[in-house]
Amino acid sequence: MSTLITGIGSLVTNDPGIGAGPLGLVEDAAVVVDGDRIAWVGPAAAAPAADESFDAAGRALLPGFVDSHSHLVFAGDRTAEFNARMSGQSYSAGGIRTTVAATRAASDAELDANLARFLREALRQGTTTVECKSGYGLTVEDEARALRIAAGHTPETTYLGAHVVAPEFADDPAGYVELVTGEMLDACAPHAKWVDVFCERGAFDGDQARAVLTAGAARGLVPRVHANQLSYGPGVQLAVELGAASADHCTHLTDEDVAALAGSDTVATLLPGAEFSTRAAYPNARRLLDAGAAVALSTDCNPGSSFTSSMAFCIAVAVREMGMTPDEAVHAATATGARALRRTDVGTVTVGARADLLLLDAPSHVHLAYRPGVPLTAAVWRNGVREV
Amino acid sequence: MSTLITGIGSLVTNDPGIGAGPLGLVEDAAVVVDGDRIAWVGPAAAAPAADESFDAAGRALLPGFVDSHSHLVFAGDRTAEFNARMSGQSYSAGGIRTTVAATRAASDAELDANLARFLREALRQGTTTVECKSGYGLTVEDEARALRIAAGHTPETTYLGAHVVAPEFADDPAGYVELVTGEMLDACAPHAKWVDVFCERGAFDGDQARAVLTAGAARGLVPRVHANQLSYGPGVQLAVELGAASADHCTHLTDEDVAALAGSDTVATLLPGAEFSTRAAYPNARRLLDAGAAVALSTDCNPGSSFTSSMAFCIAVAVREMGMTPDEAVHAATATGARALRRTDVGTVTVGARADLLLLDAPSHVHLAYRPGVPLTAAVWRNGVREV
Repeated sequence: MSTLITGIGSLVTNDPGIGAGPLGLVEDAAVVVDGDRIAWVGPAAAAPAADESFDAAGRALLPGFVDSHSHLVFAGDRTAEFNARMSGQSYSAGGIRTTVAATRAASDAELDANLARFLREALRQGTTTVECKSGYGLTVEDEARALRIAAGHTPETTYLGAHVVAPEFADDPAGYVELVTGEMLDACAPHAKWVDVFCERGAFDGDQARAVLTAGAARGLVPRVHANQLSYGPGVQLAVELGAASADHCTHLTDEDVAALAGSDTVATLLPGAEFSTRAAYPNARRLLDAGAAVALSTDCNPGSSFTSSMAFCIAVAVREMGMTPDEAVHAATATGARALRRTDVGTVTVGARADLLLLDAPSHVHLAYRPGVPLTAAVWRNGVREV
Repeated sequence: MSTLITGIGSLVTNDPGIGAGPLGLVEDAAVVVDGDRIAWVGPAAAAPAADESFDAAGRALLPGFVDSHSHLVFAGDRTAEFNARMSGQSYSAGGIRTTVAATRAASDAELDANLARFLREALRQGTTTVECKSGYGLTVEDEARALRIAAGHTPETTYLGAHVVAPEFADDPAGYVELVTGEMLDACAPHAKWVDVFCERGAFDGDQARAVLTAGAARGLVPRVHANQLSYGPGVQLAVELGAASADHCTHLTDEDVAALAGSDTVATLLPGAEFSTRAAYPNARRLLDAGAAVALSTDCNPGSSFTSSMAFCIAVAVREMGMTPDEAVHAATATGARALRRTDVGTVTVGARADLLLLDAPSHVHLAYRPGVPLTAAVWRNGVREV
């Protein structure tokens, strides 16, 4: 079954060989979807016939968003903690540990339903690929369970046993790293594609992070790193040294960190929702882009520090606060997000790519920044199937 | 026909006599809607019977948003201008005049359809009351037309002939003020409830603004003022002196301006979408609230400086950037918005109030700030009718 999507006012292909600029923009375009793939892309006037036809009515079509950093296997929420923080009140917050307790106490079915609900919410907002981390279990069984559940929904599963030191190991962080690199890794590796670590004061230092990532790599998991979020540190350099697909957050970077990213294949994934929701200073995307680094945008969706699932919101904030142009932000939320997951089948609208498409209720992708907060989804296809 | 909405996890009544705090929060609540009005509010366990029943399933219910400042009678958009501004490129922008030209060239039917589309978009996001200004016509006929069209959709119509000096009067601003206070006012007053003026360098000075507002008041229109947006100036003091319902923007305020607002019935209406979309510094809501001024939030929805129709987005940004607590921001977007329109029938969930209600897909109103950018509308009633 093939479908001709025609009357596309503005098409973001992310292929400069097809259209104008880095976004490969084509005006008055058409796309043919055949099965789960893109079969044809070009000017509407030259489009071939197909079994069915869909009139985009002048609206903008772009690749579905690729959200390469989220924490969606959890239970409970942290409304009271957020409310206290934003109201200037003190709150004896357990932080991540609050969510760890709620997640451990939840049934498999509950966690699965929560995850499905958030993925559906993201899909309604145009996100067709979602990376999903463990990290709220922190026991062998609970981490493996989180990844098993995540793997039922997405191939982009990330083992983050090294999110924080488990409460049971508060006095023995070395023992926890041993668990994370040993028995827990054994239980998790079969369900994970990636290994991640929160390299930060209060979480894991450079040596511990290196141990976690190299152990994961030895099991075939590819590294990605929570790096330089709250302070300067070794995370980014470690990510580059170990060939990580992505260094995430990148809020506090030295010139050497920026140069290392620019000289590497490691994507700098920026997560503006986290700074928005914690009133922290934003990372400087402009500096990274000007140095030649690849910059992706992602939601960091989690109930503590960034409870947004909206890639459009991240685009709008990145343009407002991080020195990105609307074009750069849209590219970062699609093509570079795919690169951060080392995926070549998503993030572009090109022949052979997966038919993951977002039709906006707007004539241009610029509206994602120009109309902040406004739900602009007109239609979403994933694997060629109209989902929204 | 009466409807019992029960199972409300958290109800914002905005009546401290009914529930906890300034928001009058009631947990495990119910509301009875009878015709277009609220007939009963209280704990679910004590709810009376009704013809129909709706299960809120633990979600949060609040008054529909009251958006007291918008510019929605227009044609065209300004995507290229926005894109250039946010990309650091120069752009020979005609600014407001670009939209004036497009609006004048549009047919009545086109303007009416545009307005209806934006009001529907706002309704889907929980906004049940919208104020709507003229100001993109700037001729007698075009201003009157804008207000006639707006009056077909909302009682909250505002005559803003004094938006900028019409291009035809570029060399004769005094002549334009004469028109605005004379023939144009005659044509517009029958269709307007409010009179407004953009009191700012480059638009109208204090004397001109006073002439516009007093002429409007003499025709029964109540003043509201675009005041102190881009620079310090006389707008706020003038608004207070003339008993304006609202002084809007309030971005640059002296201590005397803050004191004047705090000692008056004039609401300070803050419009964070404008600062977001122009990378300008935000107004300080905390300073106004601490002084005792009433603060409302509104979208300023317009195609130039703030093309958002999302009150939820404004709440999230106000909490992030303007020192408001989530509770204060929700109050500002509902009860104080109603006050800025001198309405007592909207902005609260109390017996006798209009049944304008927003059910969130979330357990608490705090999620409007906690989940930025995420569409959270589960249902919307306006005048007792389920619209979304």
